[in-house]
Amino acid sequence: MTSRICRTFQTAPAAVPREESAKYLRSGLESEGFSAPDWLVPDLEDGTAPELKAEALENVCRLLPEAPFSGEIWPRVQWSDTAADRREQGRDEINTLVSEVGEYIDGIVIPKVGRLADVERALEAVSSAESAHGFGDGALGVALIVETARARSDLRRIAARGRDTRLEALVFGPVDYAGELGARDMGDGRPRWDGLLETLSNEASANGLLAIGGPFDELFLERAGVTVYNAEGYAEQVEHEAHLGLDGSWSLYPKQTIQANRIHLPTSEELERDVSKTERFNEAKAGGTGAVTLDGQMVDEATLKTFRNTVETVRVVHERRPEQTGAVYEETLLERTLKLRRSVD
Amino acid sequence: MTSRICRTFQTAPAAVPREESAKYLRSGLESEGFSAPDWLVPDLEDGTAPELKAEALENVCRLLPEAPFSGEIWPRVQWSDTAADRREQGRDEINTLVSEVGEYIDGIVIPKVGRLADVERALEAVSSAESAHGFGDGALGVALIVETARARSDLRRIAARGRDTRLEALVFGPVDYAGELGARDMGDGRPRWDGLLETLSNEASANGLLAIGGPFDELFLERAGVTVYNAEGYAEQVEHEAHLGLDGSWSLYPKQTIQANRIHLPTSEELERDVSKTERFNEAKAGGTGAVTLDGQMVDEATLKTFRNTVETVRVVHERRPEQTGAVYEETLLERTLKLRRSVD
Amino acid sequence: MTSRICRTFQTAPAAVPREESAKYLRSGLESEGFSAPDWLVPDLEDGTAPELKAEALENVCRLLPEAPFSGEIWPRVQWSDTAADRREQGRDEINTLVSEVGEYIDGIVIPKVGRLADVERALEAVSSAESAHGFGDGALGVALIVETARARSDLRRIAARGRDTRLEALVFGPVDYAGELGARDMGDGRPRWDGLLETLSNEASANGLLAIGGPFDELFLERAGVTVYNAEGYAEQVEHEAHLGLDGSWSLYPKQTIQANRIHLPTSEELERDVSKTERFNEAKAGGTGAVTLDGQMVDEATLKTFRNTVETVRVVHERRPEQTGAVYEETLLERTLKLRRSVD
Repeated sequence: MTSRICRTFQTAPAAVPREESAKYLRSGLESEGFSAPDWLVPDLEDGTAPELKAEALENVCRLLPEAPFSGEIWPRVQWSDTAADRREQGRDEINTLVSEVGEYIDGIVIPKVGRLADVERALEAVSSAESAHGFGDGALGVALIVETARARSDLRRIAARGRDTRLEALVFGPVDYAGELGARDMGDGRPRWDGLLETLSNEASANGLLAIGGPFDELFLERAGVTVYNAEGYAEQVEHEAHLGLDGSWSLYPKQTIQANRIHLPTSEELERDVSKTERFNEAKAGGTGAVTLDGQMVDEATLKTFRNTVETVRVVHERRPEQTGAVYEETLLERTLKLRRSVD
Repeated sequence: MTSRICRTFQTAPAAVPREESAKYLRSGLESEGFSAPDWLVPDLEDGTAPELKAEALENVCRLLPEAPFSGEIWPRVQWSDTAADRREQGRDEINTLVSEVGEYIDGIVIPKVGRLADVERALEAVSSAESAHGFGDGALGVALIVETARARSDLRRIAARGRDTRLEALVFGPVDYAGELGARDMGDGRPRWDGLLETLSNEASANGLLAIGGPFDELFLERAGVTVYNAEGYAEQVEHEAHLGLDGSWSLYPKQTIQANRIHLPTSEELERDVSKTERFNEAKAGGTGAVTLDGQMVDEATLKTFRNTVETVRVVHERRPEQTGAVYEETLLERTLKLRRSVD
Repeated sequence: MTSRICRTFQTAPAAVPREESAKYLRSGLESEGFSAPDWLVPDLEDGTAPELKAEALENVCRLLPEAPFSGEIWPRVQWSDTAADRREQGRDEINTLVSEVGEYIDGIVIPKVGRLADVERALEAVSSAESAHGFGDGALGVALIVETARARSDLRRIAARGRDTRLEALVFGPVDYAGELGARDMGDGRPRWDGLLETLSNEASANGLLAIGGPFDELFLERAGVTVYNAEGYAEQVEHEAHLGLDGSWSLYPKQTIQANRIHLPTSEELERDVSKTERFNEAKAGGTGAVTLDGQMVDEATLKTFRNTVETVRVVHERRPEQTGAVYEETLLERTLKLRRSVD
């Protein structure tokens, strides 16, 4: 848990071969309500074809200053731990972004990093652009996409850089990762990589970083000639990520953003349960009890922390997106939640 | 596998707001048969409310010298890798325990440790109390509760201290851990953290330590107005832990202790299967065969080791708790088991 | 993914107490078609009884020079990180093998290694035999069996030796491993150790090594008096290993070899799917698109890598075993596959 919020990490290709090449980027920047991601990630990397890279960068520099978007903006640049030319392109993109729209972005997303030494190079690329263009040290964050076997191997040491650098988030990249390991989709999808997700969640928490799940690419399902949005598949993945303590999920599509914003808010039932148990535990504690059984569950100071997470998440989202908390919770529950929060301070 | 035995790690709050504040502690110390845990853990930490901490410590110092308890006694003190005052309270508790009842306890349980450096501080606290009060070096063991993201991150290096220190056991603390990582119970419980459990089992084995599972707090289930003990839920968790090679399970409640003591003994079927296959393999080996197919399974020297674990567990429990092995196994099977054991020596 | 191929790692005891003690070894060496493993592993270790070890070594030295076997040959010798006499026997076996049949073998399989320091000893044993008998440096590879808690603990550092030594493969040894950790088969088999398998797959990929799954020993099932080969159980394990990106599976038996050779080839459906999506993506890319939705799936450069793995596996197997690819794929699909491969170069 960190107080920075990123329930949704939505990538949008910064240029596509359409009449208006910035169509998807603009639509992300104009999104509202549950369709608005906490982080919008204009994509200069895999989502944009090679011959549109230059136009994509122009689109970002042109649209960001005029965008009404209220969340954070983190462009994804090109990078590779094995290809020096990709890193050079990435450095150029970082320089242009910082110089042109540095005050409109919150950080840079760097994909395909390798071992710790490569991560150091990536951090350095942002840091030198920052100082070259007159920004204060640490003005811009870095989010890394963990998608090579080398980065996974060094994950513990890479995450530890979160304690003393601009590193802010670790994002999983399952598609490239599956390609690296030679994992096979034999008709029932890619592996979930639960070991990796557990480690990602742990190392992020141990070092004050956000942990974000990877994209879900089976966007649509076909059944007897009719194609529908795969609402169930994506929701299951996001619920699993929330269950393991990941802070947010990757979205490729506005409907995914709606779902991930919802799922990374506690449900009404969860909030009612945790607020009620906290209230009752506080009463029991006033009577000198360290542990008490509530609705069959043994509750003590440790259990209380998980309830506090629920309350804290609602409070943080309520501050930034009151229209979302207002849509999900009844007013009296929300009041009890915020009151509980104040009593803890 | 180590020869020290801890199928059950039962915590008992050392003081509760009742007429007899030592009620639960006394009941643990007087437990018998399958209700008696291998380790009783008088709890001075989360199970005891702040205003009863002093009384809790007095209860422990008063009851231990007169207790008929035949298992090991490991009090849990306060600690925290992030709060110096908690560590100070822990050091005071350790000092009092060692000075007052050092000869009645087997070791100290230290919760909420962080990275390796914090573990070193915790080990040092026990070691200086030990020498201050005239005990020989290593007279008292240490069991650590792994429940912070930092301890999980450093687990490999922490466990390695088992080779040259008083460290004896690693215990999982899933409630605090879920709170740290922000894991959510969205109606179907907390994650099992299988990656963590695998690593705990491995690192304990690699360094001669015991590995103990975490508490199961959904003690009771309600169904149409009737509340019952959740026998199924706890048994499933304990079976899963035994399956992964954990040596024991945490108990919060006498019925849990009965179940965990049972489950961490091989069943009759398991023992019969493994004794019989060992007998048959030994015969085949006498005829010069390295690998033989028994009941469809290819058995060789490696397989034999897992059978040996079954036999060894029964032997160790039989030595300490013959009433338990007597209750579970038929006499002839027990005789074959003990005979097999002798032939291996 | 490495270009060396080992879909099947078949162990054969090098001597059994039969009239012809080399019966199983010979049958492995004479195997053909889908019954022929990519790697044959003449076993001098657990599969061979102590009193037949000398004869086993003679069998290997006698049969290899005349064998028609077209795959790789990797004898398994004795070793142990905890028993010096076993290591001495292992060194003697390595020396004899290299001196007598060094030109007929591709490498040595070393079991029961411990921490990194023990792995260094094992690598050194092969390297000194190699230079003593006039082979060029690195002529012989080493495959390690990961089956102790110590090796699992050091796995990340052990695998890193793959970058600058003769180390070529990491093989899982679940039977010894379960024995070490005290894991229990309580009627539903041993744990799958998914955390370990994920790490094995990752560390192998991060360091250019092959990752091979462990043996499946429930060879046969009995049902109402009739015993049948457990085709379902083994296939499920091998499919799981392929899903996680392991390069190959361990076989104890010719029928297992047939299944693992098949499963580690993409199915017709997989190949058709990935070839077709690659063809369609290439078309879209020619029109300036970075990401495109194909059959409901969002496909970009990252997705393409997993398709490339499918194509590459088929190509590599087709080069070495055209009779196998010919038996599995229709001619037109195979042609499209090989054409696609050429267009990528």
